[in-house]
Amino acid sequence: MRALVYKGPQDVRVEEVPDARIEEPTDALVRMTSSGICGSDLHMYEGRTAVKPGTVLGHEPMGVVLDVGPAVRLVKKGDRVVIPFNIPCGSCLNCIRGFTSGCLTTNPANAGAAYGYAQMGPHRGAQAELLRVPYADLACLKLPGKPGDGMEDDFLLLSDVFPTGFHATELAMVQPGSTVAIFGAGPVGLLAAHSAALRGAAEIYVVDKSGARLSLAKRQGAIPIDFTKGDPAEQIVELRRKNKELQQALRPGEEKMPGVMCAIDAVGYQAFGRDGEKAEPSRVLMDIAKVINATGTVGLIGVYTHNDPGAKDAAERKGEIALPIGELWSKGVTIGMGQTPVKSYHYQLRDLIMAKKARPGAIVSHRISLEDAPKLYKEFDKRDKVTKAIVRFV
Amino acid sequence: MRALVYKGPQDVRVEEVPDARIEEPTDALVRMTSSGICGSDLHMYEGRTAVKPGTVLGHEPMGVVLDVGPAVRLVKKGDRVVIPFNIPCGSCLNCIRGFTSGCLTTNPANAGAAYGYAQMGPHRGAQAELLRVPYADLACLKLPGKPGDGMEDDFLLLSDVFPTGFHATELAMVQPGSTVAIFGAGPVGLLAAHSAALRGAAEIYVVDKSGARLSLAKRQGAIPIDFTKGDPAEQIVELRRKNKELQQALRPGEEKMPGVMCAIDAVGYQAFGRDGEKAEPSRVLMDIAKVINATGTVGLIGVYTHNDPGAKDAAERKGEIALPIGELWSKGVTIGMGQTPVKSYHYQLRDLIMAKKARPGAIVSHRISLEDAPKLYKEFDKRDKVTKAIVRFV
Amino acid sequence: MRALVYKGPQDVRVEEVPDARIEEPTDALVRMTSSGICGSDLHMYEGRTAVKPGTVLGHEPMGVVLDVGPAVRLVKKGDRVVIPFNIPCGSCLNCIRGFTSGCLTTNPANAGAAYGYAQMGPHRGAQAELLRVPYADLACLKLPGKPGDGMEDDFLLLSDVFPTGFHATELAMVQPGSTVAIFGAGPVGLLAAHSAALRGAAEIYVVDKSGARLSLAKRQGAIPIDFTKGDPAEQIVELRRKNKELQQALRPGEEKMPGVMCAIDAVGYQAFGRDGEKAEPSRVLMDIAKVINATGTVGLIGVYTHNDPGAKDAAERKGEIALPIGELWSKGVTIGMGQTPVKSYHYQLRDLIMAKKARPGAIVSHRISLEDAPKLYKEFDKRDKVTKAIVRFV
Amino acid sequence: MRALVYKGPQDVRVEEVPDARIEEPTDALVRMTSSGICGSDLHMYEGRTAVKPGTVLGHEPMGVVLDVGPAVRLVKKGDRVVIPFNIPCGSCLNCIRGFTSGCLTTNPANAGAAYGYAQMGPHRGAQAELLRVPYADLACLKLPGKPGDGMEDDFLLLSDVFPTGFHATELAMVQPGSTVAIFGAGPVGLLAAHSAALRGAAEIYVVDKSGARLSLAKRQGAIPIDFTKGDPAEQIVELRRKNKELQQALRPGEEKMPGVMCAIDAVGYQAFGRDGEKAEPSRVLMDIAKVINATGTVGLIGVYTHNDPGAKDAAERKGEIALPIGELWSKGVTIGMGQTPVKSYHYQLRDLIMAKKARPGAIVSHRISLEDAPKLYKEFDKRDKVTKAIVRFV
Repeated sequence: MRALVYKGPQDVRVEEVPDARIEEPTDALVRMTSSGICGSDLHMYEGRTAVKPGTVLGHEPMGVVLDVGPAVRLVKKGDRVVIPFNIPCGSCLNCIRGFTSGCLTTNPANAGAAYGYAQMGPHRGAQAELLRVPYADLACLKLPGKPGDGMEDDFLLLSDVFPTGFHATELAMVQPGSTVAIFGAGPVGLLAAHSAALRGAAEIYVVDKSGARLSLAKRQGAIPIDFTKGDPAEQIVELRRKNKELQQALRPGEEKMPGVMCAIDAVGYQAFGRDGEKAEPSRVLMDIAKVINATGTVGLIGVYTHNDPGAKDAAERKGEIALPIGELWSKGVTIGMGQTPVKSYHYQLRDLIMAKKARPGAIVSHRISLEDAPKLYKEFDKRDKVTKAIVRFV
Repeated sequence: MRALVYKGPQDVRVEEVPDARIEEPTDALVRMTSSGICGSDLHMYEGRTAVKPGTVLGHEPMGVVLDVGPAVRLVKKGDRVVIPFNIPCGSCLNCIRGFTSGCLTTNPANAGAAYGYAQMGPHRGAQAELLRVPYADLACLKLPGKPGDGMEDDFLLLSDVFPTGFHATELAMVQPGSTVAIFGAGPVGLLAAHSAALRGAAEIYVVDKSGARLSLAKRQGAIPIDFTKGDPAEQIVELRRKNKELQQALRPGEEKMPGVMCAIDAVGYQAFGRDGEKAEPSRVLMDIAKVINATGTVGLIGVYTHNDPGAKDAAERKGEIALPIGELWSKGVTIGMGQTPVKSYHYQLRDLIMAKKARPGAIVSHRISLEDAPKLYKEFDKRDKVTKAIVRFV
Repeated sequence: MRALVYKGPQDVRVEEVPDARIEEPTDALVRMTSSGICGSDLHMYEGRTAVKPGTVLGHEPMGVVLDVGPAVRLVKKGDRVVIPFNIPCGSCLNCIRGFTSGCLTTNPANAGAAYGYAQMGPHRGAQAELLRVPYADLACLKLPGKPGDGMEDDFLLLSDVFPTGFHATELAMVQPGSTVAIFGAGPVGLLAAHSAALRGAAEIYVVDKSGARLSLAKRQGAIPIDFTKGDPAEQIVELRRKNKELQQALRPGEEKMPGVMCAIDAVGYQAFGRDGEKAEPSRVLMDIAKVINATGTVGLIGVYTHNDPGAKDAAERKGEIALPIGELWSKGVTIGMGQTPVKSYHYQLRDLIMAKKARPGAIVSHRISLEDAPKLYKEFDKRDKVTKAIVRFV
Repeated sequence: MRALVYKGPQDVRVEEVPDARIEEPTDALVRMTSSGICGSDLHMYEGRTAVKPGTVLGHEPMGVVLDVGPAVRLVKKGDRVVIPFNIPCGSCLNCIRGFTSGCLTTNPANAGAAYGYAQMGPHRGAQAELLRVPYADLACLKLPGKPGDGMEDDFLLLSDVFPTGFHATELAMVQPGSTVAIFGAGPVGLLAAHSAALRGAAEIYVVDKSGARLSLAKRQGAIPIDFTKGDPAEQIVELRRKNKELQQALRPGEEKMPGVMCAIDAVGYQAFGRDGEKAEPSRVLMDIAKVINATGTVGLIGVYTHNDPGAKDAAERKGEIALPIGELWSKGVTIGMGQTPVKSYHYQLRDLIMAKKARPGAIVSHRISLEDAPKLYKEFDKRDKVTKAIVRFV
């Protein structure tokens, strides 16, 4: 089969590799109809992870079931399915508690497995014609309709980016009426904004430097903040201070809560400084510490790694960076972080798409063939016009 | 001052009563600009409570602060404010835990106090020109704008019905993607539907017999179910079974969840049977036990009382009615019930109105003068065309 | 193999039946070392369920793995294991959300499957020499030590009664410092008391009529209440009123909370009236409504069924009984109910036993051979001296 | 009245100051019977905060009510009471949500007020004969018994250290069966260990360098770890690896969870390095990142400040320190932090003391007169033999 293979930094190619196939009785074999290219793939593409050359990339699979192993009971040939990027067994200590992102048995090296990703186990990626899906009964979410129909993009995003944006709003405890600041308007940041809107947030701010991405955020109902035009925390506070209604409604003391109650870091360790160009890994966390109100809640969904070959010094290489813990502690914030347990949200988000209440596909900017994927990686890496790209096989 | 006084069953009149005034250092005196007439006022109007003749009714107050006691610090003369129907002290065991609906110190007889309501303490009601507001610093939510502006209706509903509808969705644990059945399309049921939509529910069914109310529910994005046309649980299941997309998405076993995950009783003990006319107090709970899926969650926001002088027998008079506990237990449901702790939701719902994301005022059908209130009670008691009435003083 | 078979009301016998064996690739075959006889087995024994004659009973399995199917990866021959009474698949909508007690795929008729139980699917019971365990990777909790060692009783109770008693305290939201009333001092009630103590409850009351059981409750640190000596709600309130320290600590208003914050029904539909003899299915719920404080939380762990062939009328046969919903609503209680999702608690309770902080085995009164089981059923059915019986094979 | 006054680093003296008195209608005046000296007082004593010379210190008040203002209703002259270190109004946005530690109205400068503490508002401290208590109805928890009786120590600890230790276990989400590592065996660390035991933790490790403190931890049922004898994370993992029962119970993959599920930092920014002498502010957080398991939960109860005049450089002065965010993110931990909202736990912890289930007073090592307090500060600052000191006035 054809598959996109990581060869080294800035070098991915489409090559012939052995066909995926059923290997265990609990497997399914799925023919891809769509396969996403994720912002987190860029960490590997840029050589900022421990991924090994030769790895087939891709962890956003969707397709049609070709075959199932003898122990598969809930999935059958012909089913249209979307599959989480993480690979859980469903039976270990972590899976039982809902932490399918920390499965103890599907990755020999660590807690947590995924398709085609650095340090996430030996599983081949989904940017390929075929995919072997372990524990298929648990993994496969069934979809209505037909491959390539009008819902193809919306449903594909159930594999990773939509649940991940949603998980960010869980970590940040977004409630009806919340004020939310989201740093980063890549695919995850945009779908965090979409998720915050679905949960009834009252005010949503999205911070980025890309005009293209900020205007997409605006279409999601968010207020765009260009961080190259000044301290984003101050911009948000200033906008709120200029809102006459908000000011009229303040009681004494409430001016001590000038920022937001919920903040989301959808950037991670590859953050830029104010100039939008120089790497500054603690920039977003510094800004969040400033804009978050006392008692606020923070979700870190952008990746921080403890194994970054491209970091500028030994501490950063291990993921040790300076953080404003004094300010965070004084404010009494709560911080959640880490990868998304996709299965925790899979049904409810699909049902929102089916009910036409969620439209994650609105962020997709590029649909390409597998053969064009290497070119797309290069373009996506500019982190501007490509808001979300999907390899389409139909 | 002029005030609406309960004289006896089906008999309320507007009369001159002594002016409300500051009595304690923590009080405020508020001139009403709007005051709601609540569906729960009808329980008293119909003689189905222990309310005493001579009581000034009304527990949905909104207005402008005229004066404050010497211990009031967060509220000042001229503030535009809305006030919860419950009267909490903020310092007792229950208030500290957030149960401002169960305050131990503001009602000598029971846990929980309110303005102008049976068994809820000696507090005069708000369907009057002036209102004494105990513990004003806790009670008063500040509002932007000016009395009588375009937000007057929306903000008035923060006193009771909007938080109460929202509380119903909390009790029923409505989440993004939930399926919800709401029994009763009175003001609370309609705003429960609005709240469910704000929280991102995927499917919302509203059950009633009134065409006028059901069409309002439809405008909130809900699917109307007329219970006089057949078992509402069966109607909902049938609609879901006929939805082709829903059926295509089912995996084996999921047909055992044909109903909804969340159900709300916004009717209470004065429920009608299938004919829409005969009293049948356990009707709604029977229907809910049928339509709720295994593991579902139920909120009982419609009032059940243990002191109903108008009940048909001794057991019902004490609020003892036959319930399908065998079916509920087998399904493993969770049931929450009782009055709303308004302060728990006050800020977030106001902020949603200010952000133009909530429009509770859309359910208001009648704005009347205080002098016309008795006539309105009579009309409202038909539980049809009057979806929500507000006494307007501006 | 030898197994205990239900032949009809009050008639169980030990007979030869075909050996259990591996049937699916995800199965394990387990040789029993201990198998509990549960209070809920008595509902079947008494003919108060729809169980079919010929059913092998028993749903509290513990033993040593004899063999595993080809898809089993986490369990191996020779492992000492305890197995939950419920049989979950781990992959369906309900299992994913943690509701392994409502699995959609392991019982063709309903949500939720179990070994050897009425309406819980076609699975043979565990009061037998061998047991086929479906989805063994999910089911089997591994145990240290050796069959028949000093922990055998403690570990056996992890199959049902200990998690079930613990689940009751989850449903009733028992916290450090809580006041708790537990109705019923059978095995589940006693281990609910043990669980409440483990969670740091301040006051634990246990209500029963059996002196033997009440003295066991006392040994768990609970205060025994004999309901044949007077209204148990009044007895509890009276004990609290006579506690000088409690009275001295009261602030104004707190006298309105004279009962308990948490209540547990560990009896269910086969409740007795005050005389301790006559059936009165709503007795416990009436008592709970009386003793629970406003804002309290209630867990119904005793079984209520909607299919009781032995009920006294048509309504009770369907599980419809009169409940004091007026009082419960006025108090604003929250009620959780239903079967225990054992896997949710399996690890933590085992770890408490291993750390010597939990000793559930203290309630075991009888250890018998399989051949003696029929005699034991008869004795257990008196609901007095047999607090917990285990069939021991080692 | 006599009071302990901060004069400058390492310099506190007992002086005559103007009597405390009722200033607002909601105040109470309380004669101290006991007043604690807190580990956090040492941050001020050492000149590591912005506290102003002339400040009366002390924020752990307990005593007898001498007088109340005209708006006080729930507290009366002669009541024996304990008072939280934080000063909440009960009516602001944060207090309503239960964040009494972030009150918006009682400290002009910040969210959150306390008695006698740096940057926590203008409130005089409790290491004095008399204390003015604002919002007395909310603040005062009533106590049984008599001043100086056998419960005096236990009850005094309700003002701060016991709720603070308990809050740490809330932040770290300690459950029945949890494994917990607590860094720091000062008063808060010890009572975090006591709280973890009350909540049913299975394994509790306490890390410190002081033999005296570690042996107290051991008496609380914890396993002591001396960090000067080697990496504490490795010591804990090693102990668990050597536990034969734990190893026998492991299923495949569970070896990836070798550490603990819950970790508590009861040290804060004044941490020592491995040698037990050199300041190393990120030491504890580094150790926690190492010992915590994937999906674990962390509570930071030890103070981190953003205004440390004694820090070694500009970044640390602002509370910016290097943290292993890469490792924490990879493990997907949740982190809670900040001051304790004492009122959230006040009743339940008092009730545990009254029920003889909690004995926090067991950690008190020194009871002294006010005049001896300066000497005690000096001794306490060695962070060894003084585990907890109380100024006794009776």
